[in-house]
Amino acid sequence: MHRTGIHAGIHEECGVFGVFSKHTTQVANLTYAGLFALQHRGQESCGIVVNDKGVFAHHKDIGLVQEVFTQPVMDSLGEGNISIGHVRYSTTGGNNRVNAQPLVVRHVKGPLAIAHNGNLVNAHMLRERYELKGAIFQSTNDTEVISYCLTEHRLKKDSIERAVEHAMYDLQGAYSLVIMSAQKLIAARDPNGFRPLVMGSLPDGSIIFASETCALDAVGAEFERDLLPGEIIVVEPDGIRSIRTHCGRKSAMCVFEYVYFARPDSVLEGCSVHKARRRAGELLWQQHPVNADVVIGVPDSGLDAALGFSHASGIPYGVGFVKNRYIGRTFIQPSQQQRTNSVNLKLNVIRETVAGKRVVLIDDSIVRGTTSARIVKLVRNAGAKEIHFMVSCPPFKNPCYFGTDIDSREHLIACQMEIPEICRTIGADTLGYLSIDGVKSIAKEAKCGFCVGCFTGDYPVSVPKEMPKDKFESKLGEF
Amino acid sequence: MHRTGIHAGIHEECGVFGVFSKHTTQVANLTYAGLFALQHRGQESCGIVVNDKGVFAHHKDIGLVQEVFTQPVMDSLGEGNISIGHVRYSTTGGNNRVNAQPLVVRHVKGPLAIAHNGNLVNAHMLRERYELKGAIFQSTNDTEVISYCLTEHRLKKDSIERAVEHAMYDLQGAYSLVIMSAQKLIAARDPNGFRPLVMGSLPDGSIIFASETCALDAVGAEFERDLLPGEIIVVEPDGIRSIRTHCGRKSAMCVFEYVYFARPDSVLEGCSVHKARRRAGELLWQQHPVNADVVIGVPDSGLDAALGFSHASGIPYGVGFVKNRYIGRTFIQPSQQQRTNSVNLKLNVIRETVAGKRVVLIDDSIVRGTTSARIVKLVRNAGAKEIHFMVSCPPFKNPCYFGTDIDSREHLIACQMEIPEICRTIGADTLGYLSIDGVKSIAKEAKCGFCVGCFTGDYPVSVPKEMPKDKFESKLGEF
Amino acid sequence: MHRTGIHAGIHEECGVFGVFSKHTTQVANLTYAGLFALQHRGQESCGIVVNDKGVFAHHKDIGLVQEVFTQPVMDSLGEGNISIGHVRYSTTGGNNRVNAQPLVVRHVKGPLAIAHNGNLVNAHMLRERYELKGAIFQSTNDTEVISYCLTEHRLKKDSIERAVEHAMYDLQGAYSLVIMSAQKLIAARDPNGFRPLVMGSLPDGSIIFASETCALDAVGAEFERDLLPGEIIVVEPDGIRSIRTHCGRKSAMCVFEYVYFARPDSVLEGCSVHKARRRAGELLWQQHPVNADVVIGVPDSGLDAALGFSHASGIPYGVGFVKNRYIGRTFIQPSQQQRTNSVNLKLNVIRETVAGKRVVLIDDSIVRGTTSARIVKLVRNAGAKEIHFMVSCPPFKNPCYFGTDIDSREHLIACQMEIPEICRTIGADTLGYLSIDGVKSIAKEAKCGFCVGCFTGDYPVSVPKEMPKDKFESKLGEF
Amino acid sequence: MHRTGIHAGIHEECGVFGVFSKHTTQVANLTYAGLFALQHRGQESCGIVVNDKGVFAHHKDIGLVQEVFTQPVMDSLGEGNISIGHVRYSTTGGNNRVNAQPLVVRHVKGPLAIAHNGNLVNAHMLRERYELKGAIFQSTNDTEVISYCLTEHRLKKDSIERAVEHAMYDLQGAYSLVIMSAQKLIAARDPNGFRPLVMGSLPDGSIIFASETCALDAVGAEFERDLLPGEIIVVEPDGIRSIRTHCGRKSAMCVFEYVYFARPDSVLEGCSVHKARRRAGELLWQQHPVNADVVIGVPDSGLDAALGFSHASGIPYGVGFVKNRYIGRTFIQPSQQQRTNSVNLKLNVIRETVAGKRVVLIDDSIVRGTTSARIVKLVRNAGAKEIHFMVSCPPFKNPCYFGTDIDSREHLIACQMEIPEICRTIGADTLGYLSIDGVKSIAKEAKCGFCVGCFTGDYPVSVPKEMPKDKFESKLGEF
Repeated sequence: MHRTGIHAGIHEECGVFGVFSKHTTQVANLTYAGLFALQHRGQESCGIVVNDKGVFAHHKDIGLVQEVFTQPVMDSLGEGNISIGHVRYSTTGGNNRVNAQPLVVRHVKGPLAIAHNGNLVNAHMLRERYELKGAIFQSTNDTEVISYCLTEHRLKKDSIERAVEHAMYDLQGAYSLVIMSAQKLIAARDPNGFRPLVMGSLPDGSIIFASETCALDAVGAEFERDLLPGEIIVVEPDGIRSIRTHCGRKSAMCVFEYVYFARPDSVLEGCSVHKARRRAGELLWQQHPVNADVVIGVPDSGLDAALGFSHASGIPYGVGFVKNRYIGRTFIQPSQQQRTNSVNLKLNVIRETVAGKRVVLIDDSIVRGTTSARIVKLVRNAGAKEIHFMVSCPPFKNPCYFGTDIDSREHLIACQMEIPEICRTIGADTLGYLSIDGVKSIAKEAKCGFCVGCFTGDYPVSVPKEMPKDKFESKLGEF
Repeated sequence: MHRTGIHAGIHEECGVFGVFSKHTTQVANLTYAGLFALQHRGQESCGIVVNDKGVFAHHKDIGLVQEVFTQPVMDSLGEGNISIGHVRYSTTGGNNRVNAQPLVVRHVKGPLAIAHNGNLVNAHMLRERYELKGAIFQSTNDTEVISYCLTEHRLKKDSIERAVEHAMYDLQGAYSLVIMSAQKLIAARDPNGFRPLVMGSLPDGSIIFASETCALDAVGAEFERDLLPGEIIVVEPDGIRSIRTHCGRKSAMCVFEYVYFARPDSVLEGCSVHKARRRAGELLWQQHPVNADVVIGVPDSGLDAALGFSHASGIPYGVGFVKNRYIGRTFIQPSQQQRTNSVNLKLNVIRETVAGKRVVLIDDSIVRGTTSARIVKLVRNAGAKEIHFMVSCPPFKNPCYFGTDIDSREHLIACQMEIPEICRTIGADTLGYLSIDGVKSIAKEAKCGFCVGCFTGDYPVSVPKEMPKDKFESKLGEF
Repeated sequence: MHRTGIHAGIHEECGVFGVFSKHTTQVANLTYAGLFALQHRGQESCGIVVNDKGVFAHHKDIGLVQEVFTQPVMDSLGEGNISIGHVRYSTTGGNNRVNAQPLVVRHVKGPLAIAHNGNLVNAHMLRERYELKGAIFQSTNDTEVISYCLTEHRLKKDSIERAVEHAMYDLQGAYSLVIMSAQKLIAARDPNGFRPLVMGSLPDGSIIFASETCALDAVGAEFERDLLPGEIIVVEPDGIRSIRTHCGRKSAMCVFEYVYFARPDSVLEGCSVHKARRRAGELLWQQHPVNADVVIGVPDSGLDAALGFSHASGIPYGVGFVKNRYIGRTFIQPSQQQRTNSVNLKLNVIRETVAGKRVVLIDDSIVRGTTSARIVKLVRNAGAKEIHFMVSCPPFKNPCYFGTDIDSREHLIACQMEIPEICRTIGADTLGYLSIDGVKSIAKEAKCGFCVGCFTGDYPVSVPKEMPKDKFESKLGEF
Repeated sequence: MHRTGIHAGIHEECGVFGVFSKHTTQVANLTYAGLFALQHRGQESCGIVVNDKGVFAHHKDIGLVQEVFTQPVMDSLGEGNISIGHVRYSTTGGNNRVNAQPLVVRHVKGPLAIAHNGNLVNAHMLRERYELKGAIFQSTNDTEVISYCLTEHRLKKDSIERAVEHAMYDLQGAYSLVIMSAQKLIAARDPNGFRPLVMGSLPDGSIIFASETCALDAVGAEFERDLLPGEIIVVEPDGIRSIRTHCGRKSAMCVFEYVYFARPDSVLEGCSVHKARRRAGELLWQQHPVNADVVIGVPDSGLDAALGFSHASGIPYGVGFVKNRYIGRTFIQPSQQQRTNSVNLKLNVIRETVAGKRVVLIDDSIVRGTTSARIVKLVRNAGAKEIHFMVSCPPFKNPCYFGTDIDSREHLIACQMEIPEICRTIGADTLGYLSIDGVKSIAKEAKCGFCVGCFTGDYPVSVPKEMPKDKFESKLGEF
């Protein structure tokens, strides 16, 4: 799941975690374990903030959780009764440390720490508004915008939760927030519920918030419930309260959470991610029946769909690939002359499984098509007679504005070609995508609606005409 | 496959790689790619030696291939026409850098580099013999012993290959060697062929030696053949020669290479490792038929056997676990109070797959039983109604003297208890092991015999009565 | 000059550097060299910002210049035509990376980078004012306050230089600033001129600003002039302008720059630092004549004064100490039982110089007295017959509010005891301090007045009654 | 004293340290402190071995003492009752870790650790002899040769000290050894006493050996005495013995230890190093009287001689330079265009001291002349009217074979030119060297003779006609 490897094209931008304990204890360790379980949601940077009676200790840096949080760092964080943490994906580069989260603010009203998963569609407008009132921005991420928004409202309201409630009128787009003040832990989810956010509890009564249930499992917490879209939950020494002012709008969770982002052992909105992926495979079979000898999946997220396809079709399931698990950020790319073999280093075919056979090959998506072409070639070279490429979601035809980096249209192969041409380009014998109705029904147990904007161009909230990839970086005016 | 995780009990001790090119080129990059593909055979330390017209540049250190071989280090190795490399497992500790391989010797006869996979059973006797003739030893590994042995014979013979040939009369036990002199690359395999060693070739005529075929795939090489047990192959500018003086003894490759050590995409002695594992699962079903609803495997090496069991039995195959792929050496263990959840961090159950079901759970081995007990508990807690634990090899009852660290008898649960008691200890409903005849037949396409000494106590060569774990470390005499 | 060593008590808080070139060139290398020369002014963290046609690249981290700016980091900064840099001292701790400078702000008006040396006395008031208008603060240093102040004024004025000019009405205390916008490099010095700031030029017409002239020497620049107290200098493509709205107030440069902070090869306000230190020694002799055999100085800053004392008195100058130059931040403190020898590790006496002699021992200051006592003991143990301890400045009796960390009164030995008692406490035979008039006259060539507030309690600008050491850290209110 | 800087030409190759305590204690900390004090003798790599009841723990690596020995490393070394350590200079390069010392040997007779300062003139002959008897060499340093020699004799003799005694008949050249066996600590000095070696004791009776007395001061030890040339001292639980079989040969300590290598606070053979350097300055004045206004020394080792010259001549002593103390191994060299300023970064002139004056400039040596020329130019540019360059030793005309890297003749300016031409080349007005008789008399209190072979070509022991710089590296034969 080190996504530098095969799925270089699509990235979730964050995972969040928070814990509120009634006693001073090793909350940093719980956050560490929770972030470790959420590592698949962001491998670029991470951070933990610990609240010990109102004094915040924090550390964040570029790297994986276990690289950044060494024992001396953990020791320096100390104990506390509240803690929040964050894992983040972003493009590489020396300056991105400034974008690491959680953001810690030291205000006359008291300290505040914010961890955010999602993407605001009006961040640039808010940012300009704050800048023209005197705000300064040190980073390029939305979290700093959210901080100004919270601060603006906090100065007018008498509590942080009221500030969050009122700020939510200003914030448009996707956000799952975990916020920590001197005495409170607050979780909030945007009114459409684009990104997941769950609540759990420990046997000792501690409350946990996390992006996915796998983080609850990692800390031994019991799942309580998903936050409602638009809900704010306030945890404070006196107890827990829910604020539902923003609830009731049409829910639209990102369906790609089921297809690719979330861990298969997580349960989101009542539906097992693993089950949704299997069902995607079953639907693929119904929509694209084919005669074949074996069904294989591209690791890791194609495996479950392959199993579903196999069960529905009766075509035997096979293990088609071995993925090298040791690839990390420091891996040296092979030299020019060896580049053609580069996928072999990360992914090798088990010849035994495919040689001489008609193969159904299942992946979760096609972005630019180059990786798919290389995988098809690998399987072909290993002796497959036919290759039927099945994709467990519909074609990407539109950018995502809600927290993933699905490329702009010029990089999406499905914006450039019809399906038969894509099939030829990647070298498959046949190519089948899951239909839009299909993908909408993979998580049928889920008690929420879905955003499928990247497939349909129809977004739950209005999006800006032109939103540059790097919204804030390149101001070239003269201060 | 970062085996610090679940299979802490059994370790292969090495992987070797060598390349001979007719021209000066980036041989270090080929060795890097080859070692990266062999990383599963040793994650403790690694090394590369490059030969540029008789001048050896080398680097070795503790860490994974991509951690040790950064771009500046690769640059410092430069180009050459021959290169060898090594990955090694060993216990942790500050002093073990001295044990990293390949060993580079600077001798009046010329330079020499040696990479070794295996274990000599008479190393301590050879070592004492050399020491009493004036030798000094700086490490605790066999490779230094082999160097003295080669040097002793080289001083009497007129070539390195003759020295290897004659040294093989002295060396007893398991060894797959790749040796580099100023002009030659030599590969040698012990007369029983305990450890694998294969030869391949690149399109430009370069010759490759590697522990497994997956390393050939990684560098784009064509598989040529396995070395014969006892064979020496000499590659020099004039061509390739085979020396078969030591061939013809009873072959006895470690069967556990198929069960656990080798990568499933490798083909050893003509038999696909993946296929052998599936067959182990099929045989398990034949030997231990059971009524169940789902078959799951413990990742990674139990997955193939589970698939075989499923196919043979008709019981559906399921994905039972998610393994966290981000665990590395610097992972901080959870605190005392959280330790009971520790397996959850590395391995989480997909509840959907097992809840309310009768589960066949397949793992490749049981060493001490503690990990198995924790896994059974995880599955039980996730709601499984019955758990039938199936092991794709027989019970370990004896130590291994040939290059793996299968524990001494007091740590092997199968030496302490009968099978029903083991079943109760790990908390399963039933427990089935593959029979000894069964494990011998999993790789039936293989053109070799097998060592099953760890199961039977019957070893292909005589072993010392008492061989301490650390053969050389603790000399307490007064120099 | 690694001041972790002997002078743990007093720290300058910063050095600044800026360069404006007419062409795109390796401005980062110039800043690197300049910061390296200013390293004695701050060893905790450092940073460089490079401006390439309005796009800012920056890097800052905890560590020495050469530790933070490795070749890959320098490569990532690239070329540009303007660059600023900063070295900073601060207390240790994991969170202080956030305090590293320069501060980079991304504003709708354009990007801005600020490097600051000094300390505002009204920072907490300004900060509260901005926070109540919606500002958020991520660090605890003054530079963020200055940024808000500049931004506030920039929104009302039509240029950055006008914003600086007007901001200076708000900023009270000590500040030497180097500021970079998309097209301009601006230097500004507070109206009292507490901290030094000089301008130089390269042969190619590039303009340099730096805290001290030694940084001009390091980059091969010609000294142009000191900035006037209160002066703003604007460098832009069209040329250089000086804004002197704030000039003319009573100048009051920190006299301790001459005594201790600045490098002896620097020339500040027209007076050589080395010469000022020698003159301090000469004046000490006039004020405290003594019969003695040898004069020695405590390295490094006591050496020049010792030479002055020797020349004035005719008592031979001797080399009394060897300072171990290899001490860095990672030095392991000796264990409990060895602690009494701890000064020996850093500073050893040359017995030959002092044994059997009457020794004049000159140091630049006494803060708590503990280090002085240890040094006296070292010299006594080496066989000195008499020790006359001379201090090249008056007793510290008051805190500093202008950018050094001279301790609060309870830590200053001169606030606790009269001079004879201090003399007994440190174990000297006699003890002499330079008089206040004396210290005021050491830099008599200097064309400026001096702040001697730490000696007299009489400060050039009014100071807050109570200013906590950490002005912003511990807000314990509820956000 | 980070000699990468100014004196790149001449390097001592080692410092050694050993401690024997009657009880198990923190001997590693003592060795750490001792090596820290000896760091000037070698900054490339270092190592410590701790002996706990016969079990050796060791660590060695490339880097300064405090870089290599972090707290976790120190913890891993643990306690013991004997310990030895080593600091080493060598050329840079990835492979040199193998050359770090002490060398630890694991032999059937028991473990052995060896730390060596010096250079054998017959190492290559010994090495070839051992190789032809079957020895293998992994490094290129003499210590491995010494180990084989000790082992050879130990196998024939009944104790380590007898082995050392007999090995000394074979070893020719310079060696100061500290050797540790399971129960003993042994120090040995070659019969000419080329390199220093001293013994001290702690209050608790522990015995210390070190290259210089400054290491005794660092650990709080009392100086006992210098080892005699040729002496072996054995420390064991029963007490201390001296073996003087090899004593009585003509003593010939390297005179350059006084001129440059040793720390000025050390006392070697009864003579203070600081005093010897001052006397060199006094003699320079006698041999080269000159009219001048100020005497300055090049830091650090030229300072003492400058003081001596000043005292003898009556010409005032001045501080002419500031040396940047922060230069370390990772310092980035300035770009091409800035290279002419490169000495300024490391060494800046105090203009005040030299402007308009006739300057006597004293350095300890001239090797190639390029650094001297740059220093003269710096002083000239700072406004000096005349520059009289004085060297506190005679011209280097011959290589050193005894443990320093004084270059081969083609790199020694004094082998290429007469003194007047050297004077013109470096740009001085006059140039004076100390005479050979002069340098022989600088340490007149010393109770030993001196080797002045690098000046005269007359060596105390016969040297090989041709000894390559890298004696062992480039064997290009075919093993």
